[in-house]
Amino acid sequence: MSLAPFFLFSPNEKQPTQGPRVKSEKLVAACLERIAARDGKLQAWVHVAAEAALAQARLLDREPPRSALHGVPVGIKDVFDTADMPTSYNSGIYRGHQPRADAAAVALLRKAGCVIAGKTATAEFAFNHPPATRNPRNPAHTPGGSSSGSAAAVADGMVPLALGTQTGGSVIRPAAFCGVIGLKPSFGAINRTGVKPVSDSLDTAGLFAQTLEDAARALHLLSGLAMPQPGAPVSAPRIAFARTSRWDEADRASHAMLESVAGKLASAGAVVAEVSLPPALEALFEEQRHIMKYEAARALAWEYANYRDLLSSGILARLEVGWALPRERYDLAQGIARDARLQFRDLMRSFDLVLTLAAPGEAPKGLASTGDSIFNGLWTLLGVPCVTLPCGQGPAGLPLGVQLVGTFGADAALLARAQWVAPRLPSA
Amino acid sequence: MSLAPFFLFSPNEKQPTQGPRVKSEKLVAACLERIAARDGKLQAWVHVAAEAALAQARLLDREPPRSALHGVPVGIKDVFDTADMPTSYNSGIYRGHQPRADAAAVALLRKAGCVIAGKTATAEFAFNHPPATRNPRNPAHTPGGSSSGSAAAVADGMVPLALGTQTGGSVIRPAAFCGVIGLKPSFGAINRTGVKPVSDSLDTAGLFAQTLEDAARALHLLSGLAMPQPGAPVSAPRIAFARTSRWDEADRASHAMLESVAGKLASAGAVVAEVSLPPALEALFEEQRHIMKYEAARALAWEYANYRDLLSSGILARLEVGWALPRERYDLAQGIARDARLQFRDLMRSFDLVLTLAAPGEAPKGLASTGDSIFNGLWTLLGVPCVTLPCGQGPAGLPLGVQLVGTFGADAALLARAQWVAPRLPSA
Repeated sequence: MSLAPFFLFSPNEKQPTQGPRVKSEKLVAACLERIAARDGKLQAWVHVAAEAALAQARLLDREPPRSALHGVPVGIKDVFDTADMPTSYNSGIYRGHQPRADAAAVALLRKAGCVIAGKTATAEFAFNHPPATRNPRNPAHTPGGSSSGSAAAVADGMVPLALGTQTGGSVIRPAAFCGVIGLKPSFGAINRTGVKPVSDSLDTAGLFAQTLEDAARALHLLSGLAMPQPGAPVSAPRIAFARTSRWDEADRASHAMLESVAGKLASAGAVVAEVSLPPALEALFEEQRHIMKYEAARALAWEYANYRDLLSSGILARLEVGWALPRERYDLAQGIARDARLQFRDLMRSFDLVLTLAAPGEAPKGLASTGDSIFNGLWTLLGVPCVTLPCGQGPAGLPLGVQLVGTFGADAALLARAQWVAPRLPSA
Repeated sequence: MSLAPFFLFSPNEKQPTQGPRVKSEKLVAACLERIAARDGKLQAWVHVAAEAALAQARLLDREPPRSALHGVPVGIKDVFDTADMPTSYNSGIYRGHQPRADAAAVALLRKAGCVIAGKTATAEFAFNHPPATRNPRNPAHTPGGSSSGSAAAVADGMVPLALGTQTGGSVIRPAAFCGVIGLKPSFGAINRTGVKPVSDSLDTAGLFAQTLEDAARALHLLSGLAMPQPGAPVSAPRIAFARTSRWDEADRASHAMLESVAGKLASAGAVVAEVSLPPALEALFEEQRHIMKYEAARALAWEYANYRDLLSSGILARLEVGWALPRERYDLAQGIARDARLQFRDLMRSFDLVLTLAAPGEAPKGLASTGDSIFNGLWTLLGVPCVTLPCGQGPAGLPLGVQLVGTFGADAALLARAQWVAPRLPSA
């Protein structure tokens, strides 16, 4: 589902400039119908607010548009608090938990006239045990995680937009696995108040969309960042093609896809240079894992102390690694990350974006694992904006994605470059 | 109240090495008695968990010590969530609000065998409207804020330790106004999960104590940072004496106090050099205010959208400034802060600590304002550790404090230097 026919105006505008206005009620009803038809199988949702969403849509249809996303239904990963829907973080500890307030991002969406359609399935605390969600492209496969439900819901056309979070690779990886746009903005671009914390230094709110234009519209209203005008001319970018030291952990289809993309973009006029990341950047593949586990142990200290029996064995094992890590080792990791951010800034004086893998391959078969975030943690710890675009498919016929990475804070520039890249990808 | 007779062991140890163990029940009962006698006047507490605290103390008395603070009662600023006590952030929006979980810092205290005595009064959302708390040194004066109750409770001997938070100057200023030790650790040293957010880039959990040893013990168990051994030899520090560009906003008594301290420490063997802060550092006095207001508007988006009538006029005005600030201006402030952190790191290659003012003077008269955080926001935005030590008094007979500032992450080194400084202060 694209919002293109719905939104005939630019992402920074508040009023439509032309064309008829599609009714929010009609759009919401269509989404609810799709959910009713498909979610028994896909299990992307843990709560659907059908009545409230329709009622809200009817109210919004009587108002002048508040934003470019006025009346649009949005799915909310069930780690964002909602004042009118239960929020359980896929943990038995919080079964039926009803937060007092909306998360800031949810409040901003409502303020902009969005309709909150419901809560989407998440891995346990966005950190470990996968939900029952299936990949809409092939239900025998995982949709990825931890933002499993948001990725699947957008990929299946149940909603045009959904919120997720990324601490390791929880936006980019499921978006790539499901064949939709995933956007992890710069660290801090979207306020995290009311998002269940896992790792204070890493947790980043992000989003899923079917088009780059919709992603830009949503990021604009959530962050206040000015966005590129769709159709505005963008010059061919200077691209750093980064296989990284983990290249051999990806499969052949991913190798071939990314090499083909690099060739295509060069042919289309981009400057494409293969780069080796400096050691401080390469080190972040490991350092991100130390920081995540150390911080997660503290963030979930109350749950660990009081409800160990309601935590999955997987999360318990990871928290125990976090408790065992000395503070000095954690501080060392943070120091390496600070240095790496400066080195990445220097590298990006010569490039507009990094072209790299979003995941090591297609979505794995089965629901026991959401796949490996190996190609994501580095960029999450750097705090730089990342977007994944669907690009072809792998041997099992499931989507592959490329990942484009920009400079910290320059999310709009990254999205403008992505608009140049997208129509030039091999599958387009 | 000092814990010295209670704790005869070093801050990093888990077991007492010598001496009799004072019963937690006795200590908690003494604290509750003091609260009962004095809090009608001082109003430092919004909730006292008398029965639960005594019961917990009795249980702890039957256990081997879990930490150096086993059995110690602690006051918790009412912006930290508690699973067994209401948490209302001094806002009518949250009257009687009962969080589901403990904040991470509270869970860590309980894990270490501390007794949660109750919740201490805070300014509205740790951000604006002062509570009714009075200064124990003179009840006609403010105790400072926003951690008003924690500062007053420790100063009055109601508890030996209390948690606070600092976004502008909410730990250092009230500690100085009440004549106790205030410690704002490095940004991120203490996990913030379950602390009501105001400003994601600034909010820092900190603490109040009557002795540096107790502050070190508490920071150790909350952060995992190794602490200096009490009594270990510390060489005379190299001190950057920073009046800063805001010197003229402090009163004469504060000027005389700080100049006298600089002289005394130089006489005692410290290298004391007067420094002018580079422009990028000076700029943070203003930039901190932009960042705080921009982020507070987003952090309180739900409250602003739904309960404007229950927000104080003061907080409303500040949130509206935050909403009006363009994202570009906010991003500029963050960029200046990143540069300033590098410049401060360079400056600190030549110094062990910065000696500067904690506040512009004594606690102002009346309760309408908690005083000015002018001398605090710069350091909060830098993210560096700060400690205030009581030092003499002003013309109204109320305490003054010096502020010592260290290098990011080197909280233990700062506390070790503070242990060198404290006995050499003019009032000692």
